[in-house]
Amino acid sequence: MKALWLEGGALSVRERLVPAAGGEALVRVRLSGICGTDLELARGYYPFTGIIGHEFVGDVVESPDPAWIGARVVGEINVSCGECEACLAGRPTHCERRTVLGIDGRDGAHAEFLRLPVRNLHRVPDSVPDESAVFTEPLAAAVEILEQVRVLPEERVLLVGAGRLGQLVAQVLALTGARLRVVAKHRIQKELLSARGIETIEPEEVEPRRWDIVVEATGSPSGFDLAARALRPRGTLVLKSTYRGEVTLALAPFVVDEITIVGSRCGPFAPALGLLERAEVDPLPLIARRYPLAQAVEAMEEAARPGTMKVLLRP
Amino acid sequence: MKALWLEGGALSVRERLVPAAGGEALVRVRLSGICGTDLELARGYYPFTGIIGHEFVGDVVESPDPAWIGARVVGEINVSCGECEACLAGRPTHCERRTVLGIDGRDGAHAEFLRLPVRNLHRVPDSVPDESAVFTEPLAAAVEILEQVRVLPEERVLLVGAGRLGQLVAQVLALTGARLRVVAKHRIQKELLSARGIETIEPEEVEPRRWDIVVEATGSPSGFDLAARALRPRGTLVLKSTYRGEVTLALAPFVVDEITIVGSRCGPFAPALGLLERAEVDPLPLIARRYPLAQAVEAMEEAARPGTMKVLLRP
Repeated sequence: MKALWLEGGALSVRERLVPAAGGEALVRVRLSGICGTDLELARGYYPFTGIIGHEFVGDVVESPDPAWIGARVVGEINVSCGECEACLAGRPTHCERRTVLGIDGRDGAHAEFLRLPVRNLHRVPDSVPDESAVFTEPLAAAVEILEQVRVLPEERVLLVGAGRLGQLVAQVLALTGARLRVVAKHRIQKELLSARGIETIEPEEVEPRRWDIVVEATGSPSGFDLAARALRPRGTLVLKSTYRGEVTLALAPFVVDEITIVGSRCGPFAPALGLLERAEVDPLPLIARRYPLAQAVEAMEEAARPGTMKVLLRP
Repeated sequence: MKALWLEGGALSVRERLVPAAGGEALVRVRLSGICGTDLELARGYYPFTGIIGHEFVGDVVESPDPAWIGARVVGEINVSCGECEACLAGRPTHCERRTVLGIDGRDGAHAEFLRLPVRNLHRVPDSVPDESAVFTEPLAAAVEILEQVRVLPEERVLLVGAGRLGQLVAQVLALTGARLRVVAKHRIQKELLSARGIETIEPEEVEPRRWDIVVEATGSPSGFDLAARALRPRGTLVLKSTYRGEVTLALAPFVVDEITIVGSRCGPFAPALGLLERAEVDPLPLIARRYPLAQAVEAMEEAARPGTMKVLLRP
């Protein structure tokens, strides 16, 4: 099968063997989406050799449970052991022995086929097209914020960052009735938000010490600084992006102002699929371009350009 | 009146005028306690000129409301405006125009008299002796942790730091039925904990990534590192001490592990007084030495010695 292979920081589209069964379902990929993490993997920020990609929609072609064969599915990317303390405590995405699709210890989704355990799969409702379903994984990550932090109507919520993930976060936060403003860098980001009726704000207009909840989705030190400055005492700062390298900061103000900082990563698929099914969230305008898998290297280059929204691959 | 005066980093016991009324109660101080913040003020970490001290018990000798005259009281240290957004939102300890007794814009408690608004005062139950009541303010700061974070019985809770505040935090956390362990540096700290039936643990015995809740009460980068390493994914890190200067840290692990960090400062006086009245917490063994106010400079020197517990001043 064709696959986007990463090795020693170099990307190539290669022929690979279809992954062996090992008690897991085999999924024929319909579409996969390029995520910021894919770009970071390619830049060598994480040690990984193999097929990258973790956002997908596809069809089950083999399964230990025949009821799944033929199902159109999306899949949770953390494969957990079910036996460690984190799993037994109901935190499977934090499994101590987890592998992660296309990120850690497991070949990924930018390929013709992938393997995942049946328990990781979710059927896609018929009304949700492939090009929406492929956003389930990042949308679940956006929903994770509401699983972690209570957002009340009329609260002042600031989102810093309006990239691929930020756009989905904005749409999810907008559902709460909060007074949401979004700091967006690129014109296309602002236009996409505006089309959804979501208001943007320039960094210099952000009133300091006034926002109840601030979500940082840039992963940059300047984004972190803006977010921290904006927050009111006893406010909540949600870190939705991983940060490369180290950040130097004075912790005393966080103590004096009794700030809560919440790290936020993968989220629940079922509510994300529900939002897509009920059209509460619409990811389709976020699609910048579609490439055949054979041109995955060029697709990655395009996705890496600043301001590029979602790039999809079709095997 | 006699008072401990700080000016340009120098401490001296001076004669000062009894503070003018200005619609506030006048309290004759019975006892005051030396806090780590007093030592930091003397070291010049905050810009403050005036009478330091914010832990006290005393008698109301003047009051706009005569019902308070003669009452034995403790007092909340943040004097709020009642009109700003923080006050109107029910966060008076975060008032944007607050003054803070002996810390910021307001003379403090290491003196024969002090002034506070009547609304800041709390009557001390008759059964609580002065030497317990003087601990109400730091005990309230310890109780603040339970106001912010739900601690369940049998949860693994690690407290890093067992100094003046840490000892009170330990006693409060012990009330929850959690499996509490305390990292203590000095022998006296360990003995005090042991006498309360609270178990200590050596830093090298702290299992990494296993603790549900970690409270950092050292204010040191090494304490922060130990606390962060100990925490399990989705755990909660409570920062109970302010940190001088800056800390350099990688934020990515906090995102990947979905850690919650909670800054924690001043707390509620009423439950703190309740704990003292019902003898759920016993601060008396924490008293290292009593000095007359005239010897306050020597008392501050003693309090600054590593491992010294609470030093009290008697005007």
